[in-house]
Amino acid sequence: MPAESGRGRPRRASIDAAIREATLTLVREGGPAAATMEAVATRAGVAKTTLYRRHPDRSALLEAVLAHAIGSPTQPPDGDVRTKIRWALGEAWRQMGDVLGTGGLSAVIADSDPTFTAAFRRTLAPYDAALAALIEQDVADGALRPDLDADGAVTLFIGAYVGGLIRHGDVAHDWLERCLDLMWVAMTGQAAD
Amino acid sequence: MPAESGRGRPRRASIDAAIREATLTLVREGGPAAATMEAVATRAGVAKTTLYRRHPDRSALLEAVLAHAIGSPTQPPDGDVRTKIRWALGEAWRQMGDVLGTGGLSAVIADSDPTFTAAFRRTLAPYDAALAALIEQDVADGALRPDLDADGAVTLFIGAYVGGLIRHGDVAHDWLERCLDLMWVAMTGQAAD
Repeated sequence: MPAESGRGRPRRASIDAAIREATLTLVREGGPAAATMEAVATRAGVAKTTLYRRHPDRSALLEAVLAHAIGSPTQPPDGDVRTKIRWALGEAWRQMGDVLGTGGLSAVIADSDPTFTAAFRRTLAPYDAALAALIEQDVADGALRPDLDADGAVTLFIGAYVGGLIRHGDVAHDWLERCLDLMWVAMTGQAAD
Repeated sequence: MPAESGRGRPRRASIDAAIREATLTLVREGGPAAATMEAVATRAGVAKTTLYRRHPDRSALLEAVLAHAIGSPTQPPDGDVRTKIRWALGEAWRQMGDVLGTGGLSAVIADSDPTFTAAFRRTLAPYDAALAALIEQDVADGALRPDLDADGAVTLFIGAYVGGLIRHGDVAHDWLERCLDLMWVAMTGQAAD
């Protein structure tokens, strides 16, 4: 056992990880309203004083946890235009599905907690921008049609995930590829190979 | 004043209308959880006994109000393929925006009230089906590309509305036409005229 860890006391990093995981689980299941300081402390198995020492209030906690969970997009993989767009789409959908979950998404749509909505938009923005930048670059390179509405395409890509939830209650495993097939034609004017 | 109406007492039809409007307003603003029997009676300005005589409980009330508000799609207007699809898209978006609102949509996404989610899917289904039927007919007629994923196109169309909410917090007045431009290329393989 490492020297800095007292008997039975989780190390600092694991406390932070437990708080983040507890907060995100509560948000995914019940939206930000479910992530009270009390509920997070209980779920993380830490004292409320421990939680308050790290995050002065619920807003600060949500902001810190979202910023950490969403992180920053990495560089796209090498590959053709379609491979890169698939990657960016997968990353953006992952933020919505694995990080926010239906509880977080529905809170953003209802704007039930404006602080959370703003924090979510700030943290989705880099992924949104990465997708838009890829599309705009591909238009400039002549790989996509010159008059493509790149911003509109991003909105369709983001909305496609939620369209699955609204119609069917879940996002089918093949929906990303089908969405990409449809949007590929929209973006190039040509059916997929 | 009509003979069947006592002094100061709203007529039967206007009571029903007041109950429907109160229920929908509460759902749009706060989701189905906000539409309690108590809140609906207060908002509609009717006695709780009056409300309970018409609807035995909250589930029955929500189901009846949704079914009435959503109704059934009318026949599409005469016109070209694009005009008919624009009409069906506008109808489906109207159900989501004017009838459900962000409170109702977010409840469907979170599935926070399974009875409401099921009632919503039953009442959106005819519009969803009308859009799919139009698209499938146009594929059969050769107006849209033969290998079009019609069901996927419907999911993109439904999701597009929510994509606007997630990215920007509202649905811009020109978004329906931009969405149709993008989807037109996806569906035909050709850029709009």
